[in-house]
Amino acid sequence: MKFTTIRWNEADRTCTLLDQTRLPGEVVYETYRDYREMETAIKTLKVRGAPAIGVAAAFGVVLGVQDSRAGSYAAFKEELNTVVAVLAATRPTAVNLFWALERMRRVADENAANGIEAVKTVLTREALAIRAEDEAMCRHIGIHGAVLIETGQTVLTHCNAGALATAGTGTALSVIYQAHREGKNIRVFADETRPVLQGARLTAWELVQEGIDVTLICDNMAAQVMKEGKIDCVVVGADRIAANGDVANKIGTYGVAVLARAHDIPVYVAAPSTTIDMTIRTGVSIPIEERHASEVTEGLGRRTAPDGVRVYNPAFDVTPAAYVSAIVTERGVARFPYDKSLAALMSG
Amino acid sequence: MKFTTIRWNEADRTCTLLDQTRLPGEVVYETYRDYREMETAIKTLKVRGAPAIGVAAAFGVVLGVQDSRAGSYAAFKEELNTVVAVLAATRPTAVNLFWALERMRRVADENAANGIEAVKTVLTREALAIRAEDEAMCRHIGIHGAVLIETGQTVLTHCNAGALATAGTGTALSVIYQAHREGKNIRVFADETRPVLQGARLTAWELVQEGIDVTLICDNMAAQVMKEGKIDCVVVGADRIAANGDVANKIGTYGVAVLARAHDIPVYVAAPSTTIDMTIRTGVSIPIEERHASEVTEGLGRRTAPDGVRVYNPAFDVTPAAYVSAIVTERGVARFPYDKSLAALMSG
Repeated sequence: MKFTTIRWNEADRTCTLLDQTRLPGEVVYETYRDYREMETAIKTLKVRGAPAIGVAAAFGVVLGVQDSRAGSYAAFKEELNTVVAVLAATRPTAVNLFWALERMRRVADENAANGIEAVKTVLTREALAIRAEDEAMCRHIGIHGAVLIETGQTVLTHCNAGALATAGTGTALSVIYQAHREGKNIRVFADETRPVLQGARLTAWELVQEGIDVTLICDNMAAQVMKEGKIDCVVVGADRIAANGDVANKIGTYGVAVLARAHDIPVYVAAPSTTIDMTIRTGVSIPIEERHASEVTEGLGRRTAPDGVRVYNPAFDVTPAAYVSAIVTERGVARFPYDKSLAALMSG
Repeated sequence: MKFTTIRWNEADRTCTLLDQTRLPGEVVYETYRDYREMETAIKTLKVRGAPAIGVAAAFGVVLGVQDSRAGSYAAFKEELNTVVAVLAATRPTAVNLFWALERMRRVADENAANGIEAVKTVLTREALAIRAEDEAMCRHIGIHGAVLIETGQTVLTHCNAGALATAGTGTALSVIYQAHREGKNIRVFADETRPVLQGARLTAWELVQEGIDVTLICDNMAAQVMKEGKIDCVVVGADRIAANGDVANKIGTYGVAVLARAHDIPVYVAAPSTTIDMTIRTGVSIPIEERHASEVTEGLGRRTAPDGVRVYNPAFDVTPAAYVSAIVTERGVARFPYDKSLAALMSG
């Protein structure tokens, strides 16, 4: 990729993020030494996308405890728990966040006997491992997913499930990059994805960077584009997948899936297996973050709605499994009924 | 209403418009004496909405010929034809524009024998009549449509088919105003309606002005709001309706209709009978205006997409008649199959 979403700088033990709120106008990297900066970055969407949030949170844990002067492991553990709690409170929907934080906490406990400094080293190594696994995950999702796309096809995507949403080449967009790399002639339609415009600002930007033919549309044009026969399949990411295959993803995904069904267009969800939450039976149990009204009314630096108007701003929706043609993970492709296929994938 | 969309000022023979591109931030009225200003106002969406465009164009004709110094009716007629051609070229989809211009041209011809000054007087009278009929049309659409809405219901609307889209109380929103006036407790969800945000800027603004409970959502949230059981019916306007009941309206309407069908929610189209184009058998023949890419990429005064991205920006879509539960006009309510019900309505 021609950019780096998350970088760890071992020399000065800092973490660098590409500030995604400034794209596509400015390409600005920010470097953090304080985990509170990472907390803010996740909250304010400077880094976003379920896998990238997991990686960023892991580095956040490293930043949060590396300067600890705790005199005992119990005291260190208390500091660690505070850092984890602060980072866990940044976003509620993406399960990868909690998965990465839990993994960091567990590896600390497992190495407690070796002393605080050893635990610090192990935490850094674990965060780097999470990052490396994320890169490998993206690559394998691409390889499994590209099989589903034929040359000459046009893919509709929603939000950004690209390199900017991961530490690698993305999830949904990794499928497109891989198909492109295999010499398939692929075109993309990108929903702009209100209110935060991840499709216009991020997906269109990274596809243009990588030389993929991309056409931007407003979210409400997807139905018309499908009706005109322009779309062969939909590929989107996921923030959490329930055991039955219900998919929580960026608001608007459910609508796209219903429209795709009405036009006989398959919907593929591309996501790491860490997104699959086997503890949740159906999508009804997935908490949906409601974000501030100002994202809708002032989302673009200018007030676009009158004072006195109510706003409803759910950040995600849940697409029932029946609308999902396949779930593509780094472990392989699952098909309906997902109760069985996801269980097999997760235990395999 | 607490504002005036289009006003004719007999004293100085000018036409005043509420500049809708500045709403909701500023309430600015602009007064024109030159029909070229009216041409620009229609093109740049200072005035928009099918019925309002018809009324504005009629006054545009008055402005265009009132200072004519033509020596013969033939010369006057040539000037009139130029004015009509310029105004007809402003927008392609709304049939009311062509209907109003044709009506102005016909009344001129019918009165040619009385001399140029008499024709000028007749043209002013005709434009005022079109305006007055538009007000009455809105009132009657409201009365016929309000029957379809029960107290306690929540209506989803798309774009702006309100007072701002007419010279009266609107079409779709007239139904809501009338239900409200009848004491029914009505709530509205308004799609923001990208790219030009007529829902956020105009519908939300006028409903707040009139004291109606309105909640703004992004277009891609409509499916989720329907799934949550928050919507009882959809009411939208129309820019052109074919003889079979296919409805051209603001881009996104077709998607809303497909989503409504999937959630068993009725879709009502409220429009004046002048919107019904009996010369067009189906929606396939309705020309769909494609507007400039910058509406999508810089729609809010700030660049939101990268250079190098393609953009597709159809301004309208066509909803097949099968998705439309009823068409509400000032003459009454038509139901499927529309071939028969619209023909009966138009000949009645």
